[in-house]
Amino acid sequence: MAFSLSTSPKFCPFFPISAKSSPFSLPSFLYFRSPSTLFHLVPPSTSLLKTSIIPCSLNPISTPTSSPSLRCHPDYIPNHIPDPNYVRIFDTTLRDGEQSPGATLTSKEKIDIGRQLAKLGVDIIEAGFPAASKDDFEAVKTIAKEVGNAMDETGYVPVICGLSRCNEKDIRTAWDAVKYAKRPRIHTFIATSGIHMEYKLKKTKKEVLEIAGRMVRFARSLGCDDVEFSPEDAGRSDREFLYEILGEVIKAGATTLNIPDTVGITLPNEFGQLIADIKANTPGIQNVIISTHCQNDLGLSTANTIAGAAAGARQVEVTINGIGERAGNASLEEVVMAFKCKGEYVLGGLYTAIDTRHIVMTSKMVEEYTGLLVQPHKAIVGANAFAHESGIHQDGMLKHKSTYEIVSPEDIGLERSNEAGIVLGKLSGRHALKDRLKELGYELDDDQLGNIFWRFKSVAEQKKRVTDADLVALVSDEVFQPAVVWKLGDLQVTCGTLGLSTATVKLIGADGSQHVACSVGTGPVDSAYKATDLIVKEPVTLPEYSLNAVTEGIDAIATTRVLIRPQKNYTSTHALSDEIVNRTFSGTGAGMDVVVSSVKAYIGALNKVLGLRELS
Amino acid sequence: MAFSLSTSPKFCPFFPISAKSSPFSLPSFLYFRSPSTLFHLVPPSTSLLKTSIIPCSLNPISTPTSSPSLRCHPDYIPNHIPDPNYVRIFDTTLRDGEQSPGATLTSKEKIDIGRQLAKLGVDIIEAGFPAASKDDFEAVKTIAKEVGNAMDETGYVPVICGLSRCNEKDIRTAWDAVKYAKRPRIHTFIATSGIHMEYKLKKTKKEVLEIAGRMVRFARSLGCDDVEFSPEDAGRSDREFLYEILGEVIKAGATTLNIPDTVGITLPNEFGQLIADIKANTPGIQNVIISTHCQNDLGLSTANTIAGAAAGARQVEVTINGIGERAGNASLEEVVMAFKCKGEYVLGGLYTAIDTRHIVMTSKMVEEYTGLLVQPHKAIVGANAFAHESGIHQDGMLKHKSTYEIVSPEDIGLERSNEAGIVLGKLSGRHALKDRLKELGYELDDDQLGNIFWRFKSVAEQKKRVTDADLVALVSDEVFQPAVVWKLGDLQVTCGTLGLSTATVKLIGADGSQHVACSVGTGPVDSAYKATDLIVKEPVTLPEYSLNAVTEGIDAIATTRVLIRPQKNYTSTHALSDEIVNRTFSGTGAGMDVVVSSVKAYIGALNKVLGLRELS
Repeated sequence: MAFSLSTSPKFCPFFPISAKSSPFSLPSFLYFRSPSTLFHLVPPSTSLLKTSIIPCSLNPISTPTSSPSLRCHPDYIPNHIPDPNYVRIFDTTLRDGEQSPGATLTSKEKIDIGRQLAKLGVDIIEAGFPAASKDDFEAVKTIAKEVGNAMDETGYVPVICGLSRCNEKDIRTAWDAVKYAKRPRIHTFIATSGIHMEYKLKKTKKEVLEIAGRMVRFARSLGCDDVEFSPEDAGRSDREFLYEILGEVIKAGATTLNIPDTVGITLPNEFGQLIADIKANTPGIQNVIISTHCQNDLGLSTANTIAGAAAGARQVEVTINGIGERAGNASLEEVVMAFKCKGEYVLGGLYTAIDTRHIVMTSKMVEEYTGLLVQPHKAIVGANAFAHESGIHQDGMLKHKSTYEIVSPEDIGLERSNEAGIVLGKLSGRHALKDRLKELGYELDDDQLGNIFWRFKSVAEQKKRVTDADLVALVSDEVFQPAVVWKLGDLQVTCGTLGLSTATVKLIGADGSQHVACSVGTGPVDSAYKATDLIVKEPVTLPEYSLNAVTEGIDAIATTRVLIRPQKNYTSTHALSDEIVNRTFSGTGAGMDVVVSSVKAYIGALNKVLGLRELS
Repeated sequence: MAFSLSTSPKFCPFFPISAKSSPFSLPSFLYFRSPSTLFHLVPPSTSLLKTSIIPCSLNPISTPTSSPSLRCHPDYIPNHIPDPNYVRIFDTTLRDGEQSPGATLTSKEKIDIGRQLAKLGVDIIEAGFPAASKDDFEAVKTIAKEVGNAMDETGYVPVICGLSRCNEKDIRTAWDAVKYAKRPRIHTFIATSGIHMEYKLKKTKKEVLEIAGRMVRFARSLGCDDVEFSPEDAGRSDREFLYEILGEVIKAGATTLNIPDTVGITLPNEFGQLIADIKANTPGIQNVIISTHCQNDLGLSTANTIAGAAAGARQVEVTINGIGERAGNASLEEVVMAFKCKGEYVLGGLYTAIDTRHIVMTSKMVEEYTGLLVQPHKAIVGANAFAHESGIHQDGMLKHKSTYEIVSPEDIGLERSNEAGIVLGKLSGRHALKDRLKELGYELDDDQLGNIFWRFKSVAEQKKRVTDADLVALVSDEVFQPAVVWKLGDLQVTCGTLGLSTATVKLIGADGSQHVACSVGTGPVDSAYKATDLIVKEPVTLPEYSLNAVTEGIDAIATTRVLIRPQKNYTSTHALSDEIVNRTFSGTGAGMDVVVSSVKAYIGALNKVLGLRELS
């Protein structure tokens, strides 16, 4: 590939490159991105440079269908970015995304995702809302310690951010969780729209103004020099009041001002104008970073985010797969790929440091853990997003790939290499398995690998080829499970059109004790779940159940997802609405027998509930 | 609800309203939309009028969170819209959407969707690509006859459109299919970008120009006075050439010019500029309608479509749920709700005549038939799109609904009325069932109702309450199935952790003959499918299998979807790539036993394959 140099994740023009690691000897001006250069549809004069910046839309035979990524994080200073074209990616999958119904994550899952986000190169990880519950606090703290201190050789380590409402207790709790990170940030917010101040806060403008300033000052007084402030529902707030409160928090020491379109009601031109107005009218704005946070209620979050950046925002808040409450948030993958494809030519040189080749794995991990499935026609990460996967053009029908493809699958880490033949089979050894899992983004310890290996062998006994999707399902089932309280021993089911399905279940408790129960039900899963209930005795409702085997053949490993809601409530405080919410829990299970995988998923979800209850 | 008058689907200010149907006696100027009025952020002076046009963003205690719909289709003239603010909705679910992998629809399904689109009030239904195959031709013809002639009392009947490549044979075939409609349209296209002309067409600009003009003239010569022309890949075409070819086809008699962003590569400001440039530079453009067609590869299709309309387009091409190849198209529901929420105040008065209360039912029907699931956080129609469904705010926690809701669920036909208690139970009669199904949008004949009723009774025997979702699953399973070749007689399965699942299947052939086979497999579904294969003997691969029970409780009716690809090819011609493609087929099955529903889905998909093969 012509651009292997510049797409290398370790390539960073701000750091010396040895001759060995850089087989090309281009003069540095060719790939160093000057802060003030705007390539705004201006054709360059040198032919080499031309190759690297020619826009997709003007380049009929382009090899790079998107421009090469220059993964380089400028030095981190909270309120200033040395390169004015650099846009910080603030990922809030673990906070805003996790508050989606059913998306509740265990601490283990949160840390896995945090590590993956660091691989992706996000600038800021919003790790949670520490005041929500003890478990949320602990998860943020662990991410701050583990992910927030792993600095790579280029000096990059993600900022770890904790959300807090505008009160001392929340802010102190947030600080106590994030302070272990190399780069901690507190993100505090208060509503500024008429409707929210009147109905939710029951406070006057003057009171809100005073609280905001005082609380930002308080956050700084704790020793946190990186404080983000959000005026909630900014899209519907009075402009003059907005300028005033933002000016106030800048004086108080805020370093990033985030402008949320909380109800997702603005059109791109409106949101762009809002950012431009704030930039033009807020006293002291030149000393802070402006950020966007766009909800997707009208399907416009990606466009609004880009419009915000074009108007001067230099941080964008996004989530993986666009998850979040209601219609979710702007998708990291869409926003980042838009910058990658168009930043150079249409957006005046804007760019991010995301290593897009980790997008697919991150997307799959978040899909798996949250249970929020991605639709097949989801942009960038949907199963159909690339023509080569759709079965339409797959037999080499297209005369030229870029007639329909603007982003190449490799750009986002989708590998074609293994589609052609057998990946792994029953003769494959432990080493081959370890290597393949590493390529898929899973680095396992020896114990974990040992467990996976034996299950892999038993699958390989039954089917010719074990696909990547099978491996991912196995890893998810084996490695990424909540702490075990109950474990499936044996299961035996009969079912059919007679309608008298019967299941016998043997569960093994944490102390090794064996419990057996049987039940009839309307189907095999119903009867097995009823038998499980007889043993576990944790009353739950089951709002959702789904099962997928997306690999070819029904002999693939099927993954089941269930969502349960305990009748005895497990509660958490909702950041925006201030309310105590009843959380729902997802569980996944994988197996070649759909009934077995269904029962495993159910037990997994029950274990999550039981595990979290112990903590509370 | 304060706006029940104006949201009534039958309300149309261009037609007399009896005193009975209109309990309000507002003077007509209050709700008659004057063609030249632009309410562009100009507060009106009368208080009554004020209530009806106050923008969401300025209205903290708004009762209508979106503006009331004024469902009225202006008189239909192909190349002219009497009201300059009216935007035509061109739905291409049945053409562009149906070309998605696995979305293959039977003729019966296409007609059902066509009828539903007419209920929704879309202006133009692109019913298919008649030259693709005999089956496609027949489906378009039937829709033209049945849906294209059902004019309602207001004079509305949808235009039925057929796609054709730029050659005489295709155009004649399209005309032969659509000519039965009251308002037939031919839509022809040819690629105009450098990359497409060079690699796909292997033709010069001059040749393309000549073909386009000649073919539009040919279409008109057949007697079709409504001809749409699309320059494929317009987003990457040379501007001057675009103006030239568009001017040429206008002279030749085209009435609508559709501007596709075929690869989904433009940003909203770019696409808006493209439409504005075409409007400013194309000779004769004032005599035709400009249309948008935006692909979603960067997640920007909705924003691009709105930008196009803001720049002068008065037709927008969309699909239900945004389905389509790769990342799909702009979603009808997102675009329409954006116009509904913001058309009046931000977009200079733009509006559509869509009866948004049919959105949910249309969305579910398309999801069900195409097998393309909608993700939970999909804007407007996703399961989580409304806070009240998310479990987060459901206990009346919110102080005021519109703090987070900008579109009300009722606006799109999502009813809350039955969430509180038992909908239907085992004591409910045939009449109650019929009424409820009608409310859900299903009007069944007596035979169909009879079949459903008995299955409903048997479900009601087993569970306390039969939910709307259960009913939809039953209707889908009973009424909307392909013609029966094979039918499930009996099924008996054993499975469990022993891993030796065994299934015995009895199928009934079209002639009533009974066939029994048994097989072992890796799980209950695998063994049952293998037993089915032993009888049906139609070699297929199974790229996808999924199962959902989204209603509460695992005793809900589970719906299984499978996607199969026959090894003996069923082919169709792909409109854009000119290639012969191997289609995949989806099948759905519903039942309280997941294995039974899985086998039904598989047999349904096999029946689709066998049924279509007989036609070919």
